Amino acid sequence: MGTITKALEMLNFFSDSRPQIGLSDFVRLTGRDKATVHRHLVELEQNGFLEQHPGTRAYRLGPAILRLSAVREATYPVRSILRPVVTELAEEVGELVHASVLQGYRLSPVFHHDPMLHGTQVHFDQAEMLPLHATSSGLAVLAYAPEPFRRSILGGDLVAYTERTVTDPATLHVLLDEIHAGGVSRLSGAYDGEVTSQGVPVFGPGGSVTGALSAALPSVRATPGTLDRIAAALRAGAVRATRVLGGEMPARYPLPPQTTLEAREV
Amino acid sequence: MGTITKALEMLNFFSDSRPQIGLSDFVRLTGRDKATVHRHLVELEQNGFLEQHPGTRAYRLGPAILRLSAVREATYPVRSILRPVVTELAEEVGELVHASVLQGYRLSPVFHHDPMLHGTQVHFDQAEMLPLHATSSGLAVLAYAPEPFRRSILGGDLVAYTERTVTDPATLHVLLDEIHAGGVSRLSGAYDGEVTSQGVPVFGPGGSVTGALSAALPSVRATPGTLDRIAAALRAGAVRATRVLGGEMPARYPLPPQTTLEAREV
Repeated sequence: MGTITKALEMLNFFSDSRPQIGLSDFVRLTGRDKATVHRHLVELEQNGFLEQHPGTRAYRLGPAILRLSAVREATYPVRSILRPVVTELAEEVGELVHASVLQGYRLSPVFHHDPMLHGTQVHFDQAEMLPLHATSSGLAVLAYAPEPFRRSILGGDLVAYTERTVTDPATLHVLLDEIHAGGVSRLSGAYDGEVTSQGVPVFGPGGSVTGALSAALPSVRATPGTLDRIAAALRAGAVRATRVLGGEMPARYPLPPQTTLEAREV
Repeated sequence: MGTITKALEMLNFFSDSRPQIGLSDFVRLTGRDKATVHRHLVELEQNGFLEQHPGTRAYRLGPAILRLSAVREATYPVRSILRPVVTELAEEVGELVHASVLQGYRLSPVFHHDPMLHGTQVHFDQAEMLPLHATSSGLAVLAYAPEPFRRSILGGDLVAYTERTVTDPATLHVLLDEIHAGGVSRLSGAYDGEVTSQGVPVFGPGGSVTGALSAALPSVRATPGTLDRIAAALRAGAVRATRVLGGEMPARYPLPPQTTLEAREV
């Protein structure tokens, strides 16, 4: 692993539930020696990617990240463009909806919205990269990804996050073909034991899959009728998201609204 | 310069007017050899800080930056908190207003708003780090910064951006003392030859200066009456911004609204 990667990966330890990290915590989290960790922290801090709390000396993510994200959003405004689509869809289905974009072999969350209509909500950590094989978003992307990409994922390390995560490549291939035919993925308890989610692919120019929309709810609320209603809304959302991003739906996507879809429950 | 810094600084070449950069452009911009530049680009891309356009192979800022900025905003929401203050202030004064936070020895823009009421506007590039000695925001910060910090800036390299940039440390010390007494900085043509701007400091916990608010307008519209009206609004804005950020105004800040302030024109 290169020095740059080692340093950048330290930024990934920050999350909503861990907004500040001290030097000794970084040593423990990275398993690297204190001198190396400190040198990396100093360089990240000098470039504004981290800043140190004046009192506690703990680090938090720095202002350079805000500035760069503003530049990206101004010139390639995925988040601002998807925000109204996600918000509207979440209000329509009454549950958490999130959008994510493909980054390497995982999905990077860009925006999420929960209308907060119920006593229980799905906890969504926007800092968390989503694995492709174990999330509804990931399966929706894999189902429409080029064959070599799908194979490289299914041929790689398939982590079992719960006892319901499918990690058998052959079973996943069948499941992905079904999702490809139906246009919506559905997973129950495969990534978080208590959550059921459904995902649809979002496409860029030329009909190449670039990300996903997903709606997630506590499995206790996931009746077949509710899931079918959400699936129909998601399929329409995929078309809207693709259109606002300037992409195009591939000819093979099942465009006509279908109100039922039963991807195999796993 | 360390490897990490070399790589991170490549991200700073992106701006609103330069959203995509190719390999050969990076070689030219950095003055480094192609093999090194390519190695850095690959590591940045693998970590999601860059992504490559599938067609042109040019790089743009990547999704990891969006994800990390969302984490920072969720846990330390400077931009979301300052957005309404900046927007309201800009609508009130009818000109471009921006907020920035101290990052090392420069200011990093976090949000700006222009009500677009006039035929000419100030061009504000949110990708640009603001120098402390040559901008109204920077002078407002320096005027309230601890003495050693002020001295280190005034003792350093003071670039003349225009013929009106003050680069004499002794003159700057006097100017900063005046700004400290009045609470608002005012510069005309010191950073951009055609722009007049005024700045006020924003404070964090314990009354330490953490950033600035600034209003900028084409100098042709900068009549004394207009500038005084804007200065009064900015001073009130400094109090609002400090309060919403959980900071406190230092006892020495001239709180009672004064409608005139004539920091020396430079």
